[in-house]
This record gives sequence, C-alpha cells and structure tokens, in this order.
Amino acid sequence: MEILITNDDGRGTKGLLTLARAMRPLGRVTVLVPENGRSGMSSAISVGRLMTLRQLTAQDALTEEERDIIGTCRVYVTNGTPADCVKLAINALYDGDDRRIDLTVSGINHGHNASVNLLYSGTMGACLVATEHGIPAIGFSLDDHSQDADFSFMEPYIPEITRQLLEEGFKNGVCYNVNAPIGPLHGVRRTRQCAGHWEKELAPHTDEHGNEGYMLTGQFINHEPEAEDTDMWCLAHGMVSIQPVRLDMTDYELL
Amino acid sequence: MEILITNDDGRGTKGLLTLARAMRPLGRVTVLVPENGRSGMSSAISVGRLMTLRQLTAQDALTEEERDIIGTCRVYVTNGTPADCVKLAINALYDGDDRRIDLTVSGINHGHNASVNLLYSGTMGACLVATEHGIPAIGFSLDDHSQDADFSFMEPYIPEITRQLLEEGFKNGVCYNVNAPIGPLHGVRRTRQCAGHWEKELAPHTDEHGNEGYMLTGQFINHEPEAEDTDMWCLAHGMVSIQPVRLDMTDYELL
Repeated sequence: MEILITNDDGRGTKGLLTLARAMRPLGRVTVLVPENGRSGMSSAISVGRLMTLRQLTAQDALTEEERDIIGTCRVYVTNGTPADCVKLAINALYDGDDRRIDLTVSGINHGHNASVNLLYSGTMGACLVATEHGIPAIGFSLDDHSQDADFSFMEPYIPEITRQLLEEGFKNGVCYNVNAPIGPLHGVRRTRQCAGHWEKELAPHTDEHGNEGYMLTGQFINHEPEAEDTDMWCLAHGMVSIQPVRLDMTDYELL
Repeated sequence: MEILITNDDGRGTKGLLTLARAMRPLGRVTVLVPENGRSGMSSAISVGRLMTLRQLTAQDALTEEERDIIGTCRVYVTNGTPADCVKLAINALYDGDDRRIDLTVSGINHGHNASVNLLYSGTMGACLVATEHGIPAIGFSLDDHSQDADFSFMEPYIPEITRQLLEEGFKNGVCYNVNAPIGPLHGVRRTRQCAGHWEKELAPHTDEHGNEGYMLTGQFINHEPEAEDTDMWCLAHGMVSIQPVRLDMTDYELL
C-alpha cells in the first residue's frame, strides 16, 4: 500500500512522527509536509506563489526520532500549505497519477478539529484535496495543543482505525475526521459535527516594530453540549470521534 | 439593514465596486476586504500573525469609482484573509455582536466558484465564517477571471437575488454560492455542486532569484457534464446558479 502522510504543524513535530511510526507497518510511506507550521490554513492553496519541494536526508534530521523516519520513509518539505502538499505529492512525486496513492493520512494534529474547527483545519484541508482526487483520506487530531502532547496512547489505535475504515471501503467524495481525547480512552464512536461558534476572537496587539492590530484568539461556544451523537461530546467523555466528512457541501435537504 | 461586504480579490476591483453599488440601496454598507488580493485562501485564518485594520478616506481613493464608494459607505482594508475580514468586522466594528450584521455578501469574484472550486474559494470562506455566526451570507462570482471583466449586467440581478433569498429566510447553518455566466443571461436555477477535480496542477518554475519550484496551474475535469441540476451545467448554458451550501460537512447518509 502506497501511503502519503501530511500535516499542518510542520516537520519533526511529535504528532507527525507518531503518525509516521504508526503507518509504517501498513505500507510504503511518503511524508510531505509544510516545513514550518501552517495552522488554520483550511484548504488554502498557493495561488501565484512559488512552491518549493525538498527531500530531507539523514544529515537534515534535527532529532533521533526524525532520523528514524527519514531512514525508513521518503520525507519531503515545502513552503506550501497542507492542501498544496497533496497537490505536490500527486503531481511531482507520482507523475500526476492520483490512483498511485492508496491512502492519505494527515496529522496527528496538535489540537482537535471537532465542530466548526473543521472549517479552519489545514489537517482536514489536505484530506479534502485527497478526496477530490478519489484518494481515501483520514485526518487524525488530538485534543491537546501543546508541542509535547502525549500521543503515545494513540499509536496502536491509528492502524486499527485505518484498517477498519479501509475494510468498510471509502464512499466516493467522503473522508474521515478522527479526533482523540486526552487519554485514557473510553471507546470509539461514529459522530456528526457539533454546532458551535467562536466569539471574542480578537486581542489588540502591538508588534515589536510598533505596528498596531489584532491577534486571533477566542472562546468556543458549544451550541449543543448535551447532544451525545456529536464529536464534541465524544471528546468531553474520553472517546475517539470518527466523523464522515463530505466534499460536496450542497444542502440537499433545502434543495 | 446592516450589510457587510467582503471579497478575496482586494480593494478597488471591479467586482467589489459593482457589488457595493448594487447593495447600497438595500441598507447601510460596510466594506472590509484584504488590501491586496488573497485568492485561493479558502477559510484560512491568520493564526499567530498581526492583522491590521485601516479605514480608507476619500484621499486614499485610487479611482473615481472607488471614491464614490468611500464617500457613501464605510470602507476598511486589512492584511488578513477573507475569513479574517468577517472576524475583524464582528469584533472590531460591531463590538463582538454578530447579531448587529443583518447580511454578509462576498465578491463579486473574478472567476466562478462552482464545483470543487468552492473548497478553495476565499469568497465562500468568508460566507462560511458569517454562517458560523448565524449571519445570512451570499457569495457572488462571475465566470470571468480578467481584471476588467464585464460585471454591469449583474448589477440589477444582485439586489433581486438577495431580496428573494432574504424573503425565503436563511436556514440555520446554510449560505449561498451564486455563480453567474458571462452574459447574456438565460435564467436562474437552484443547483447542486458538480463533481469534478483538477489535474496537471503544477508547472515547474524558477523565480527571478533563481529559486526552483512549482507554480499552481491546472485543468478542470468535469465528472458529470451532462447533469442538468449542477452549477457547472448552469454556467455552460448561460444561467445563474444558486447553490445552498452547508457549514456542517457531516455525511449523514453514511452515518
């Protein structure tokens, strides 16, 4: 199996290294990620901007853990977005033939992508581009933003969930948004996207050059904290959420 | 009626000025747009980056047309993305109270946002942020990328479509993606998102500093050119497409 791994937190992050180790036993792994973090990029693409692509060698490794991945997988970095990563992989590494990639996995994101956060997620943006190309895609995220979050308990779950979803078969135009709580785990559930929104999103800020403006911040408001079938409910109750995500955004009910 | 206008092509563009002129008779218009174009930004937000906000005065106007809009509407520019524009407007111009904005319109985009292009569209990214906040939102796009595209024939249609959608009432969590063909018009239709994908998306490129990489390009492949209920079919047959777009991306059928 030919597996493409990408993310939005950049190279060498704990989430990426955990995902690469977890996927290695399942097939031939190619990693292509934004060199530095590109969080909140949604499905943004680099229009009118040169996208770089560089393969890392053992000499480039910043840590022993990264050296281990570079030694066993093809690893590339770019200045592009997560969505660009999938386009770069298909066109520069697989001769434009998307059928040569059997699976795209993205993450493990430092921070969950449940509820409306899916809209802003570069992790899931990459999955949606893969879905456009008919490639099965799964995004993995952990409900912990810190750089040194503990991903170890997820390592055995990832191949298990991946095998299960591949066995079921991927519906055309659908990918998966998998969100894990901070351990220990109390189960796994299929969920829908919780309704919610962000408020108080700007903090006035002056940078080191004296430029005035705002930094993004905010507070998430859950519109349905009691609904047991949502991704947010899962996270709040120690369960892994598996949400099927549709590329076609048409509201058929209204139509 | 309090109306917020944003776009992804930037200030002073023909599409923006046409939209502002068309909306002015409907209420009090505030324009807040990325100072320079930010195409292909999807719903990307500026995480960890200072967002500027500056009100334009008559002296800032670059053309007579822009001076006319600045003289009759509040006009702001930012270095942020289209999604940022909506967050900036709510939090910096309306005291964080999203209920004070009655309608958000975005565009008119130079180039259509039908089919999978919706995924990459900053025009529609802004609408989805407004939808998160419960604000009725409509994105307008024209099937012509050129800077001097002819938007004039759309000017009477925009208030008409807007009034019609407002009269019907906005369903919670749903906005509209309106795409217009190059005139003359042969009607208006409610549509679904056409299935399709981009291929041959990279062109090798060396910039003026000798940096090597790729520029985004590509060829759109329509998976269902004969389906008469799609947005792409409308554009190909001279009709305006009105697609209801859902913020909740869960695939309920699969669930």
